[in-house]
Amino acid sequence: MGNYTITVLPGDGIGPEVTEQAILVLNAIARRYQHTFTYHRRLVGVAAIEAEGVAISDESLEICQQSDAILFGAVGGISNYDGSDKVKPEEALFKLRKGLQFFANLRPVKPLKNLLSASTLKPEVLQGTDLLVVRELTGGLYYGHLEPPVPGKPSEIRQTEHGREAIDTLIYTETEIERILRVAFDSARDRKQKVTSVDKANVLSSSVLWRQVANRVASEYPDVTFENLLVDACAMHLLRKPTSFDVIVTENLFGDILTDEASMLAGSMGMLPSASLGTHKTAHGRLGLYEPIHGSAPDIAGQGKANPIAAILSAAMLLQYSLGLKDEAAAIEDAVTKTIEAGYRTEDLREAGARIINTQQMGQKIAATL
Amino acid sequence: MGNYTITVLPGDGIGPEVTEQAILVLNAIARRYQHTFTYHRRLVGVAAIEAEGVAISDESLEICQQSDAILFGAVGGISNYDGSDKVKPEEALFKLRKGLQFFANLRPVKPLKNLLSASTLKPEVLQGTDLLVVRELTGGLYYGHLEPPVPGKPSEIRQTEHGREAIDTLIYTETEIERILRVAFDSARDRKQKVTSVDKANVLSSSVLWRQVANRVASEYPDVTFENLLVDACAMHLLRKPTSFDVIVTENLFGDILTDEASMLAGSMGMLPSASLGTHKTAHGRLGLYEPIHGSAPDIAGQGKANPIAAILSAAMLLQYSLGLKDEAAAIEDAVTKTIEAGYRTEDLREAGARIINTQQMGQKIAATL
Ligand SMILES: CC(C)[C@H](C(=O)O)[C@@H](O)C(=O)O
Ligand SMILES: CC(C)[C@H](C(=O)O)[C@@H](O)C(=O)O
Repeated sequence: MGNYTITVLPGDGIGPEVTEQAILVLNAIARRYQHTFTYHRRLVGVAAIEAEGVAISDESLEICQQSDAILFGAVGGISNYDGSDKVKPEEALFKLRKGLQFFANLRPVKPLKNLLSASTLKPEVLQGTDLLVVRELTGGLYYGHLEPPVPGKPSEIRQTEHGREAIDTLIYTETEIERILRVAFDSARDRKQKVTSVDKANVLSSSVLWRQVANRVASEYPDVTFENLLVDACAMHLLRKPTSFDVIVTENLFGDILTDEASMLAGSMGMLPSASLGTHKTAHGRLGLYEPIHGSAPDIAGQGKANPIAAILSAAMLLQYSLGLKDEAAAIEDAVTKTIEAGYRTEDLREAGARIINTQQMGQKIAATL
Repeated sequence: MGNYTITVLPGDGIGPEVTEQAILVLNAIARRYQHTFTYHRRLVGVAAIEAEGVAISDESLEICQQSDAILFGAVGGISNYDGSDKVKPEEALFKLRKGLQFFANLRPVKPLKNLLSASTLKPEVLQGTDLLVVRELTGGLYYGHLEPPVPGKPSEIRQTEHGREAIDTLIYTETEIERILRVAFDSARDRKQKVTSVDKANVLSSSVLWRQVANRVASEYPDVTFENLLVDACAMHLLRKPTSFDVIVTENLFGDILTDEASMLAGSMGMLPSASLGTHKTAHGRLGLYEPIHGSAPDIAGQGKANPIAAILSAAMLLQYSLGLKDEAAAIEDAVTKTIEAGYRTEDLREAGARIINTQQMGQKIAATL
């Protein structure tokens, strides 16, 4: 029976349509548990660039910071990414992540039993998979392009005597590495007590430091099984034996690649939520940004084909991590599982015998189950 | 009926045992086609560090350069990669790649029909997969640690006021990008006329330059279908629709991760060969380094469990690319396919009904089929 304010950033493409369904489900929770959710809707991405000239305005960032949690859809139009865009819609994400110091990105991958057959992997390989990727989100190769540029951390295309060249810089401080490792080990204590730290320590200096810090932090958690794994080997083992993982912790870009790969274990990207957390406290818990791991998918926007479950499960993570409402979060997860068990699927999960419904209908089914 | 010299670098772990089988097969080719192969065996990796203090000696590099081709096993012992090793066995690979300017790494992935069931992916998803990853091998985040350090390209752990930090530098010149793109487009012309260039242009400056160059080169190959793809999306699409790819071209570290992932399409890493090519010409073709994409696997070394097929198929690539012996290369591929069709498998491909044989026996079966 609490009062909570949630900033809603629907964004571009399928962002608005999936976010709408997440709100429908949050409203069902509000009714059932007698909470009051107050939503502040703001423009972000292409929508914001067109209306305000920036991917997210300072005012919107301010509103985000003052709310209890942020529900994010997706950003991005049809871009060539060839340097010709003045402002990239992705800047909204970068500003939110860096500006609000959301350094820990949690991406759980737990294929639903009734969706095992939807994956391109064999059901017997997937059976029992339940992993959490903890991705560092405010360091590494990202953010080199910030304005003003960070001294000693160039990210630019420049003219040399021998033609053009481009440079990006990968920097991690010991402090940054340590705090994300701690998030991973603390998470593992609530799960299956295992942490796999992923790096490329046979090549990168940043990975050698990463590994040194990981080994040190691991020694403080003797109850947690710990292993180091090279990123290339991890890309393989995720497919060979996904059940061998519990918590995977890694740097920003490796986390980006590995989680998209891991999403295929769950049958579709449209199933996977994420939470981005920092140190900023609110009245009820920690401020967080919650978003589906899929993008704006402009090719299917407005057609009712998008799967809103990733957005709905992101709302569940929001309840759990930022509002401290664990029962409510579990209720949403339960409703999603039941709806899938009943055979309902969106287009991305089409298979023989499925009852194909559209984005809105999926949202309504899940809300009704609550 | 030619005379060829091949430098053999067996290396560590399972390197020597799989390389021995590749030589057995090359000798069968020599008999059947009346060629003479002269082998120069040299130490590399841990073996070289122990005997000579370096991962590969300058003399060995010299011998490599003067031969027609290099057959490489694997390097690496049981390392912690925590910065405590004085010399890393991997230095041998870096010196060979950088020293002999092997900038183009070709990694074909074409699951054998009889091995479709060995993969953790569903056979119907794999059916028809035939792709080639062209990985840039002498640039990017690799090689920052070279001695003497490259000016403006730091790779180091350093002390700052706020504790330690580590830095790596990702640099690509337009020239480096262009030459690897050309390898990809030229390869596509002999294949299915499609190139997918993989980058992270929504984040990295080096990827924006990469994409600009890729678009320009693509315009010179109007007969080749071309697309740009973000690396995270690629990690997903490789699993969702592997048959949609023909040639994938990408930078060094992305290529490292994606090829290990893609190896799972072929059922086992033990099936995948690679060729590393540069501009250095020999009497018969281009100097090249040929190696299985798997590593030294110290845990199974000396037990007869290693699959020698990746090494044997690497020898086939050697015949094709460096010696210009296409029929001979095809004969090896054919012998491998027949041996697999006959039901023979090494331990890595164990499944119901398989006739499990050891490393040597697999080499002998394939040689006998020739
Ligand atoms: C849109 C893009 C910048 C973003 C990233 O690379 O972090 C996305 O892929 C993600 O994983 O959230
Ligand atoms: C051993 C290692 C340095 C190497 C690399 O990262 O290039 C390996 O993973 C490969 O793919 O050849």
